[in-house]
Amino acid sequence: MKRHIYLRMKPVDEARELFLSRFDLNALSGSEEIATVAARGRVTAAPVWAKRSAPAIHQAAMDGFAVLAANTFGAAPHSPRRLKLGQEAIPINTGHVMPPGTDAVVIVENVPDPEADPIIIEAPVFPWQNVRRVGEDLVAGEMVLPEGVEITPWAQGALLAAGVTRVAVRRVPKVIIIPTGAELVPAAELDKDFPVDRLPEFNSVILAGMAAAAGGLPETWDIVPDDVEALTRALQEAAARAEVVIINAGSSAGTADYTYQAVANLGEVLVHGVTMMPGKPTLLGAVNGKPVMGNPGYPVSAVLSFEQFAAPLIAGLAGKRLEPRPNLTVYPAQNLPSKPGLTEFIRVTLGRVGDKVIATPLPRGAGVITSLVKADGILVVPASSEGLEENRPVTAELLVPPEAIDGTLVALGSHDNTLDLLATLLHRRDRSLRLSSGHVGSQGGLMALAQGRAHFGGSHLFDPETNTYNVPYIKRYLPDLPLKLINLAWREQGLMVAPGNPKNIRTVKDLTRPGVRFINRQRGAGTRLLLDYLLRQNGLDPAMVQGYQREEYTHMAVAVNVHSGTADAGLGILAAAKALGLDFVPLTPERYDLVVPDSTFNDPRFQKLLEVIRSPEYQEAAVALGGYDMKDCGKIVWEQ
Amino acid sequence: MKRHIYLRMKPVDEARELFLSRFDLNALSGSEEIATVAARGRVTAAPVWAKRSAPAIHQAAMDGFAVLAANTFGAAPHSPRRLKLGQEAIPINTGHVMPPGTDAVVIVENVPDPEADPIIIEAPVFPWQNVRRVGEDLVAGEMVLPEGVEITPWAQGALLAAGVTRVAVRRVPKVIIIPTGAELVPAAELDKDFPVDRLPEFNSVILAGMAAAAGGLPETWDIVPDDVEALTRALQEAAARAEVVIINAGSSAGTADYTYQAVANLGEVLVHGVTMMPGKPTLLGAVNGKPVMGNPGYPVSAVLSFEQFAAPLIAGLAGKRLEPRPNLTVYPAQNLPSKPGLTEFIRVTLGRVGDKVIATPLPRGAGVITSLVKADGILVVPASSEGLEENRPVTAELLVPPEAIDGTLVALGSHDNTLDLLATLLHRRDRSLRLSSGHVGSQGGLMALAQGRAHFGGSHLFDPETNTYNVPYIKRYLPDLPLKLINLAWREQGLMVAPGNPKNIRTVKDLTRPGVRFINRQRGAGTRLLLDYLLRQNGLDPAMVQGYQREEYTHMAVAVNVHSGTADAGLGILAAAKALGLDFVPLTPERYDLVVPDSTFNDPRFQKLLEVIRSPEYQEAAVALGGYDMKDCGKIVWEQ
Repeated sequence: MKRHIYLRMKPVDEARELFLSRFDLNALSGSEEIATVAARGRVTAAPVWAKRSAPAIHQAAMDGFAVLAANTFGAAPHSPRRLKLGQEAIPINTGHVMPPGTDAVVIVENVPDPEADPIIIEAPVFPWQNVRRVGEDLVAGEMVLPEGVEITPWAQGALLAAGVTRVAVRRVPKVIIIPTGAELVPAAELDKDFPVDRLPEFNSVILAGMAAAAGGLPETWDIVPDDVEALTRALQEAAARAEVVIINAGSSAGTADYTYQAVANLGEVLVHGVTMMPGKPTLLGAVNGKPVMGNPGYPVSAVLSFEQFAAPLIAGLAGKRLEPRPNLTVYPAQNLPSKPGLTEFIRVTLGRVGDKVIATPLPRGAGVITSLVKADGILVVPASSEGLEENRPVTAELLVPPEAIDGTLVALGSHDNTLDLLATLLHRRDRSLRLSSGHVGSQGGLMALAQGRAHFGGSHLFDPETNTYNVPYIKRYLPDLPLKLINLAWREQGLMVAPGNPKNIRTVKDLTRPGVRFINRQRGAGTRLLLDYLLRQNGLDPAMVQGYQREEYTHMAVAVNVHSGTADAGLGILAAAKALGLDFVPLTPERYDLVVPDSTFNDPRFQKLLEVIRSPEYQEAAVALGGYDMKDCGKIVWEQ
Repeated sequence: MKRHIYLRMKPVDEARELFLSRFDLNALSGSEEIATVAARGRVTAAPVWAKRSAPAIHQAAMDGFAVLAANTFGAAPHSPRRLKLGQEAIPINTGHVMPPGTDAVVIVENVPDPEADPIIIEAPVFPWQNVRRVGEDLVAGEMVLPEGVEITPWAQGALLAAGVTRVAVRRVPKVIIIPTGAELVPAAELDKDFPVDRLPEFNSVILAGMAAAAGGLPETWDIVPDDVEALTRALQEAAARAEVVIINAGSSAGTADYTYQAVANLGEVLVHGVTMMPGKPTLLGAVNGKPVMGNPGYPVSAVLSFEQFAAPLIAGLAGKRLEPRPNLTVYPAQNLPSKPGLTEFIRVTLGRVGDKVIATPLPRGAGVITSLVKADGILVVPASSEGLEENRPVTAELLVPPEAIDGTLVALGSHDNTLDLLATLLHRRDRSLRLSSGHVGSQGGLMALAQGRAHFGGSHLFDPETNTYNVPYIKRYLPDLPLKLINLAWREQGLMVAPGNPKNIRTVKDLTRPGVRFINRQRGAGTRLLLDYLLRQNGLDPAMVQGYQREEYTHMAVAVNVHSGTADAGLGILAAAKALGLDFVPLTPERYDLVVPDSTFNDPRFQKLLEVIRSPEYQEAAVALGGYDMKDCGKIVWEQ
């Protein structure tokens, strides 16, 4: 097993500079002449000069009568001028050519009776008044557009006005994307069933979209299996046909690392390994004078590394300017330690809570593509840093417009499937509003509220001593915060088991049976507290439950474990079991409330959410999910 | 002649609200299901739920050996564990499926000899370490995308990972554009010759581009002549086929005003006339439940009115959010009076001079499409205002990125054709730099420098008493400003006459001959001062020159007058005459300098320009224009 390890990793900026400065982008992309009507968004390859003047002839600038100005001099209501229709005053409309012998337009509103002949003129006009003179807009020979600018719709108009019907523009660089990996199922075949040990290929779709957005013309080739010779052949052909070649997924340091060998065979490896995370296994090279990028296989790595290296390259070839993302000062919701020596890109959701924008980190794994989908911004931890500190201001790159952040309600707390439903209905009701919910468990939500990191949170913390929900915990963790407890639903908690309940699990006691593998929720989750309560109530020791230590963060994740057979049972809500077609053994109904500080309650954005919560539309849809009782939904059940 | 006058004009905001609130955009556009791989940039029509989990099975997250974690417990360098290759330790690569009976990966770098059998493990791994567990990214049944969001490349990836190969998206609204006007030559035929009294049609190209940018699918129909019945027929058909109909150029208050009648015949006119300038003759209506816009004929009006009414409508139909333009506080370079009661949109160029961004107005005529092409921003003068004051801060909407403004050198002064050349070469040398030159005459340039409105200016002011250029004027107007005078060129001034010089004009004296029509430059232009000097030197009275009062602002505009036969002669530079193929009677060489305050001279951006001025590339290109002597080019000829 021969493995290539990145001994000489390069910092991000140095790698980019090495890569981009290696190619003469202007010469590499070249130019072509195209029809002006089809040139929107293209970039001029040379200055463009007007071929004709606009207007090319004097035109009326108003509706009225074309006259010789001198004939109107001295006109006044008490001494009007009379002009013979068709000879001294010729009816004319805006845009029409001025008749010979005329040099001004009397506008129709200033003529007492436009139907008379002769017409009466009661005020003089000066020469060229209400006339668009030759060249007013453009003069033949004048520069219409400089070199290197993007052609807007109005620039197309100006070019056509100037008689320029064809224009020299930078060519659109062709970007060939070569996915590699024998285990992959092509993106085009994902609608068919495929074995569970084969993986869907979708990075090529992501990269093609990003290449197009950067100004390139993407072309995705068939998947090349793990074979140096096949990849070398494909690369050679691609480097002959494209301006840029992207090889995806072949650049990890494993046995699949054929990209390095293929590039080294045919050309030169400039960079192998970049001190960034995600994105470390990035390869940058040159084959046949063309830039080649070996793009990492994990989708988040692929995106971030493409952004750093391929996007500026493609934009440069296209002659386009890549706009930097807007920035915003934000406050991390928690400490974010990061490995020194690596530039880390942390995806976060953002929401304005009080006067601060709070950045809540999303999963940091390079394989979690949803962390990009859900992200509102990216925090960049410099290589020199050991991480970011909770509540200490940092700059975020925004992936959404700043207004979107002001329209975001941040919920941190327990997970419930109806939160997704609420998010949908809220956004449908008001496009400027979004609900972002982070799943940190009920107790995690109370902590977040104590620290001002969330607008509200979902909670279902049962207190056996008082036989109530949430209130004792709020009194302990948020004693001084004026707030309201608003019921969202009563929901059925129970055991999720495989269809047909093959292990015949009926009670909590069955969880201690040998051969029954349980999957638990994380510490601080209301569902975990409920399990502990039920075990205690039945006199059972958690140590007797096989899998008590295995933790998941959401009901759905627990359901997936049961569904995929890695566990036989988990505690959770009916909606989650139903979503995956599992059987469900109901144990107890429980109250699920929203903990809403008064500062949030009085916020018009939350009031809009409350309207949704109290709407029949929401309540009916929740009932349809299964396991929900909406008898108290939207009621303020307690306040302090 | 029956004319429709706008009696009930509506303010911009009221008109927009009336128009947009009239239609149920969601219902009007509808949705369709398309392939996920083709969904980039489309907007989800419903929430999208994951059909499969990702990963769908446990996968190795690193390269190494899949093991049962329990087998490694207690491993240490002094008490290693030995695992049988292929049974207890199975070689595995990132992304591959975990073999049955394994639950962790020992990464290859941690194995002393990866080729040995058994392999030696010197440190334990915990269960699920280096494993991507089922559902880590996405859980089947989970919401992948909410309704109403634009699909990014990574969202496409997430959808495909979730097994969603087809997705419900908002339909792209079809926008049919109908140009009207018998005098127009279709955009597609502008490469052929056409009579001077016919006008090029290019608004449809501009509007189609803007419709596409707003999220629509534009379709431009053939030009409809000025005929109510023909237009009514076209509108009826278009309203049946499209979501939006734009009729262009038929909505002025002239005899061509058939749009009003056609819309009124078939449906309802909601707004006729908006209190905006340009853009007043805007018509908004409804036919067959579809929005119809009668878009004004002047190109700048067409653009601005489309932006206010059609763009938000189309974006709304497409489900997209129109990003507001970035704003910037700027200082008008001059007073900008504006008619109260009308919202005026003034196009400006922008440049940072000292610590202020100076806004220099471009021509305000609605027919001057180049005013949009050259604009860096738009100043909106509210209807309640009588205008903007010089040097008083106002907010500009930016048409270029803010960085572009910081990279702009602002030249105000005399016009010379080599300034265009300089702009091109500067931008080619450094894409972040632009040269914006405003033509206000030599004296106007000195005024602008005195008021801090420009970085530098071109000047060729001859002083007969001292027989020198510029210095006496600088001493008078800028006595206290430390500056340098840098020569750009000596250039040939002379009389531009028609090819073959049919009126045999040889000297300044010939300008006073009966039948010789002259075209002059504006007051304050160095060329006009030169003419005055030459007339005085020859004992001639300006009153004897027919056309002395007719003014143009640039050499090229003077040349156009001669070229189009509206004048027989004008004073100007050889380069302008040559550009239009005119004959040229040389009269005198003159010195053309740049007046450069020290604050500008020391600016790295200007130093870059100076490099260009002193380059052989620039000087050779200038000589090729004709009439330039570069003997002093780039020299500092005087300083104070």
